[in-house]
Amino acid sequence: MNTFANEIIHQSRQAKEASRLLSSLPTQTKNSSLAAIARGLCESLDDILQANTQDYDEAKSSGMNAAMLDRLLLTAERVKAIAKDVESVAMLPDPIGEVFDERILPNGLRIYRTRVPLGVIAAIYESRPNVSVDIASLCLKSGNAVILRGGKETLRTNKVLVSVMKKALSQTNVTASAIQLIENTDHALVTELLKMRDSIDLVIPRGGERLIRFVRDNSLIPVVAGGIGVCHTFVDESADIEKATQIVVNAKVQRPTVCNALDTVLVHKSISTTFLPRLAQELQKAGVEMRCDPESLAILCQEKGLSLRPAESNDWGQEFLSLILAIRTVESIDEAIKHIAEYGSGHTEAILTNNESHTKYFINKVDAAAVMVNASTRFTDGAQFGLGAEIGISTQKMHARGPLGLREITSYKWIVHGNWHVRP
Amino acid sequence: MNTFANEIIHQSRQAKEASRLLSSLPTQTKNSSLAAIARGLCESLDDILQANTQDYDEAKSSGMNAAMLDRLLLTAERVKAIAKDVESVAMLPDPIGEVFDERILPNGLRIYRTRVPLGVIAAIYESRPNVSVDIASLCLKSGNAVILRGGKETLRTNKVLVSVMKKALSQTNVTASAIQLIENTDHALVTELLKMRDSIDLVIPRGGERLIRFVRDNSLIPVVAGGIGVCHTFVDESADIEKATQIVVNAKVQRPTVCNALDTVLVHKSISTTFLPRLAQELQKAGVEMRCDPESLAILCQEKGLSLRPAESNDWGQEFLSLILAIRTVESIDEAIKHIAEYGSGHTEAILTNNESHTKYFINKVDAAAVMVNASTRFTDGAQFGLGAEIGISTQKMHARGPLGLREITSYKWIVHGNWHVRP
Repeated sequence: MNTFANEIIHQSRQAKEASRLLSSLPTQTKNSSLAAIARGLCESLDDILQANTQDYDEAKSSGMNAAMLDRLLLTAERVKAIAKDVESVAMLPDPIGEVFDERILPNGLRIYRTRVPLGVIAAIYESRPNVSVDIASLCLKSGNAVILRGGKETLRTNKVLVSVMKKALSQTNVTASAIQLIENTDHALVTELLKMRDSIDLVIPRGGERLIRFVRDNSLIPVVAGGIGVCHTFVDESADIEKATQIVVNAKVQRPTVCNALDTVLVHKSISTTFLPRLAQELQKAGVEMRCDPESLAILCQEKGLSLRPAESNDWGQEFLSLILAIRTVESIDEAIKHIAEYGSGHTEAILTNNESHTKYFINKVDAAAVMVNASTRFTDGAQFGLGAEIGISTQKMHARGPLGLREITSYKWIVHGNWHVRP
Repeated sequence: MNTFANEIIHQSRQAKEASRLLSSLPTQTKNSSLAAIARGLCESLDDILQANTQDYDEAKSSGMNAAMLDRLLLTAERVKAIAKDVESVAMLPDPIGEVFDERILPNGLRIYRTRVPLGVIAAIYESRPNVSVDIASLCLKSGNAVILRGGKETLRTNKVLVSVMKKALSQTNVTASAIQLIENTDHALVTELLKMRDSIDLVIPRGGERLIRFVRDNSLIPVVAGGIGVCHTFVDESADIEKATQIVVNAKVQRPTVCNALDTVLVHKSISTTFLPRLAQELQKAGVEMRCDPESLAILCQEKGLSLRPAESNDWGQEFLSLILAIRTVESIDEAIKHIAEYGSGHTEAILTNNESHTKYFINKVDAAAVMVNASTRFTDGAQFGLGAEIGISTQKMHARGPLGLREITSYKWIVHGNWHVRP
């Protein structure tokens, strides 16, 4: 264990040193490295798939469920998609060196902020091996060194992916130390990692609630956490029944396993008798189980062939990550807002309405990373927001909120140009 | 102890509730409250001074040193200055509700970020009672509730100040819960406070290194820490001798007890024989003790009447907070940058030069909250930077770096306006 802790200390110091070089790399060099990574992934397809097959087989025989197995699996097509994503990152504007808030002060000092990398980012994540490449390429583009700590179940795959990326860095004259993989997946080592605030600037946990809680509880390093999305959609009395049905169904079923999928729909009681039966019809077609409060249950139990269940108290505020939707009727927009304040996780909350003053009221009162008006909660996403790609989604207020694109994994420094100024 | 912990839990919940109301207060209401606070301070002058005299006398008889006693002391003039600062905060633009990064996405979604308060800010600080009012007024203006935990030595003064502020809030129809003072200064309660991440959004420690380290080590809540300023000024070979002398002396002596005061001057060896004797002459006049590396000592010991000492290894990287200056000669700009990387605290670093490429090189390579060119390190300050006022100075990279003005104690939320958009 001590030897392994020493290994982590060594890796994080190497990353710190690399970050000093990365911070002033020309954009073109970074883009060349990214292009080399994309090429390398395609050229090493066989090695990657071979390692992945071993990981997959082992996970399968150890009893991993089908959904998890699917997340772990790479195919030729998936690897090519990953390579394509790396190319997209190369095409994004370089955030580093951007000058902002420039002004001349009354005493003649010229002052501005310029964007700089954070330094070293440690990512702690589970299963999906594409995360290794996504995060590494976003860190590279933003001049940050990265320490990857993936799950045990994808270690073989991650080893090959990281070795491909390191080779690409070396080929393009960037230090391979910029990307570090922690190969020992002993849980205790994560605790060690979380203490290294002298060499790591930010920790990003990506995974389930237990992982995120562990990281937040044990880290001496700043953490940007998120990913837990208990998302609500409030269907106001003025909502268009048909369009609202489409949005709620889309938010629930378009990809139910992700954090911006809908968990609870709150329906204004004045339209519940028309809206709920129509909604339930579509939800049923999509195979959604409905967990209803007494009022909505009373309405829906008159319909035939629906998967209905009375909601239990822990259905409110639950992130289902599957084809389950909690349904509640509310007396007013205020009751909806209160429900969201109590049960939301600060990820994405939506209102469907044709009432402008309700729109404004909802936007003002609801405290979440993203507030949607007449749109599916599924839009909260770096690519959908036009940020190009995301390293995660933050549900906290410090540093950055919502999708973390390139700019959100940077800091800035103040530059002050004087003409031999002294302070009076 | 348990009763007191319960009291803190109660206070932080009250603050959280208040923060919900504060977040949508109109600018005018906040400004009226600030004006009422300013008036209240002037009207309650006698009560404030009486409480402060008691604090002062007790601190004096318990053996507090003169510098600390001076920081604790309020006079009629100082209270009026504090009231004036509150009026200045009222005049700053309201950061809340500011819309930025607005754009229409190709699919027609209109998206923007809007600035929101962080929620509840806890400030943990020492001695100077003006900090209570400064922080509370900045929090109020930015829509944040605040929990103040000042030092034991100023408790009586803080109690009166907070009661004046709470009264002013009530008079202007703002909940008095927006400002909470922790009256029990038991150290163990700070540890309790630092766990309350459900009700506190940010902790700002202001004080010595020990306080800041304690908070960072024990907080489950995000911390923005700073205040430790080990500041360097590199005098390049092309620097104007006379002007550089003025800047170094200003940076060291204009107010030696604060974090942006100069600690170490690094002098290019090619000008050391002309620059150092001239500098030393002025430093000596100002009563500065010089702690020199062997090269600068060899030059300066030929001059008469200087307070010289050979520098010891712990003089490098020390924040003196007094009339002591460490002096080192360097072979090159790279050696200066290396020294700064090793010993700096990421606060403020300066270069004095007439060489433009050295300016650019220094700005790029030095990693600090503020990098000064041909200006005194004393300029790193919210008011000097044109931010109006500051709640502290951050030497970390996450969230905000350098002086923390109103905007730096806010977050944002993403607002997405759709036209009944579903995700394809």
